[in-house]
Amino acid sequence: MSARSVKIALIQMSMSADKAANLEKAKDRIREAASRGAELVCLPELFATPYFCQSEDASNFDLAEPMNGPTTEAMAAAARESKVAVVVPFFERRAPGVYHNSLVVVGPSGAVAGSYRKMHIPDDPLFYEKYYFTPGDLGFRSIESGPISVGPLICWDQWYPEAARLTAMSGAETLVYPTAIGWHPAEKAEFGAAQVSAWQTMQRAHAISNGLFVASVNRVGHEGPEDGGIEFWGHSFVADPFGVVLAEAGEGEETLVVTCDLSRIEWVRRNWPFFRDRRIDAYAGITSRFLDR
Amino acid sequence: MSARSVKIALIQMSMSADKAANLEKAKDRIREAASRGAELVCLPELFATPYFCQSEDASNFDLAEPMNGPTTEAMAAAARESKVAVVVPFFERRAPGVYHNSLVVVGPSGAVAGSYRKMHIPDDPLFYEKYYFTPGDLGFRSIESGPISVGPLICWDQWYPEAARLTAMSGAETLVYPTAIGWHPAEKAEFGAAQVSAWQTMQRAHAISNGLFVASVNRVGHEGPEDGGIEFWGHSFVADPFGVVLAEAGEGEETLVVTCDLSRIEWVRRNWPFFRDRRIDAYAGITSRFLDR
Repeated sequence: MSARSVKIALIQMSMSADKAANLEKAKDRIREAASRGAELVCLPELFATPYFCQSEDASNFDLAEPMNGPTTEAMAAAARESKVAVVVPFFERRAPGVYHNSLVVVGPSGAVAGSYRKMHIPDDPLFYEKYYFTPGDLGFRSIESGPISVGPLICWDQWYPEAARLTAMSGAETLVYPTAIGWHPAEKAEFGAAQVSAWQTMQRAHAISNGLFVASVNRVGHEGPEDGGIEFWGHSFVADPFGVVLAEAGEGEETLVVTCDLSRIEWVRRNWPFFRDRRIDAYAGITSRFLDR
Repeated sequence: MSARSVKIALIQMSMSADKAANLEKAKDRIREAASRGAELVCLPELFATPYFCQSEDASNFDLAEPMNGPTTEAMAAAARESKVAVVVPFFERRAPGVYHNSLVVVGPSGAVAGSYRKMHIPDDPLFYEKYYFTPGDLGFRSIESGPISVGPLICWDQWYPEAARLTAMSGAETLVYPTAIGWHPAEKAEFGAAQVSAWQTMQRAHAISNGLFVASVNRVGHEGPEDGGIEFWGHSFVADPFGVVLAEAGEGEETLVVTCDLSRIEWVRRNWPFFRDRRIDAYAGITSRFLDR
């Protein structure tokens, strides 16, 4: 097994209402991550704007951009300047009335290597995403970013083993989850710790069952009214192919730079050969909604 | 949501070479669990015998029994006596040359409520199960045990999100994993803690992604040569539908009796409605072996 390691950076950041300022902050953080040796840099979900899904307001569609719009262009320039690959989430305007929660992966040359549109769309109080985002139609895929094969997924996708499995089966070496998850402040004391634990446990399990790295990068900061809103909980982390957490951020702004030894993937899969024994003859029911009796 | 709670017992035990003694021990433990209020009692994988899969030896097929053989009969009698449901794993002889790693679920009346044959068969050093066990052909299912709808799975199945998902979709309120997992003593110091963590994390994730209880009951004790063999690691546990570990055993013999509030299932699924958003239009690749590019 050849030794190959890649440094992945997770930029855990807060956002303001000023898109230009958010882009500038991201560019600064990319530069800093590159100076620390990062080769793949991951930004949080919808990092160019506040998390506007706290209300259903048609004027928020003005925040959307085409696939190769200003956010992609700014991050492609930063990638080229620092010679790093970047995972760039953005609010995509595809056509009037067709908007997606999307990302592009930009290679170190600044060229777009591939894109992904969020497949699983949540809808919960203050996370009114079904109003804004048409479910993705690109399926689950891997993107050759240059340093590493990236399996791009977004936030709510992280609760779906099917998404992780299909992305792994397409050849990903790491899943990357740009995320915007947080506490309702009124619930935090009672449920906060269990929510963070469930969120991390679920994603560590994707690493284990698929024998690959998982990199999850969340927003931080409080957005919305002082007596409500969402407190994005941070805790961005990288897990190795056996689910071991290699590094985990706190609840403030922070850039993690984590060395991932890619030979671990083959080592773990040789010793815990889960792919070998899948019962593909017995999984057809997965495409059913429920198996009523 | 109606309040309904069920007490689940996990009998974490060690086995001797004497089948009659193992059955007697299990009967005693079932009685004791019932006296503590248990309504569903779960035994470890192949609890009637030593873990014979440490070598490939055709004479070990003599240990197998038909579906309604002495092990089922003995446990059915214990179930009837104590008025509890019991999950009874056993080595099944179905026909000459067709053997399974199976279980039956016996109701409180002693009647067999349903059966399951291990679907995913491992094969690793000292776990030579592919030699002994024909892969199951009953698929993934739920069994009405009386107190609770049981989703029966066995050991290696626990690493497969597909198995947990399909069993949950068939209506299970709890997954039950009779297990025989342990350390190679020579590896324990280096890898032992990460292995137990991965094993528990994976199963907690099944609870979370499917919003149901998970009960995993392992063997304990060292079997095999003193300078080798397997040290079964115990750590049997019950997780709730949000992945919270309600109780966990140590590494010795122990019977856990755990109260499971079944209204938690609906409460968790209302608040984290993962089933609602499954992309069944995009999961067909799950029945592929791998998605080569």
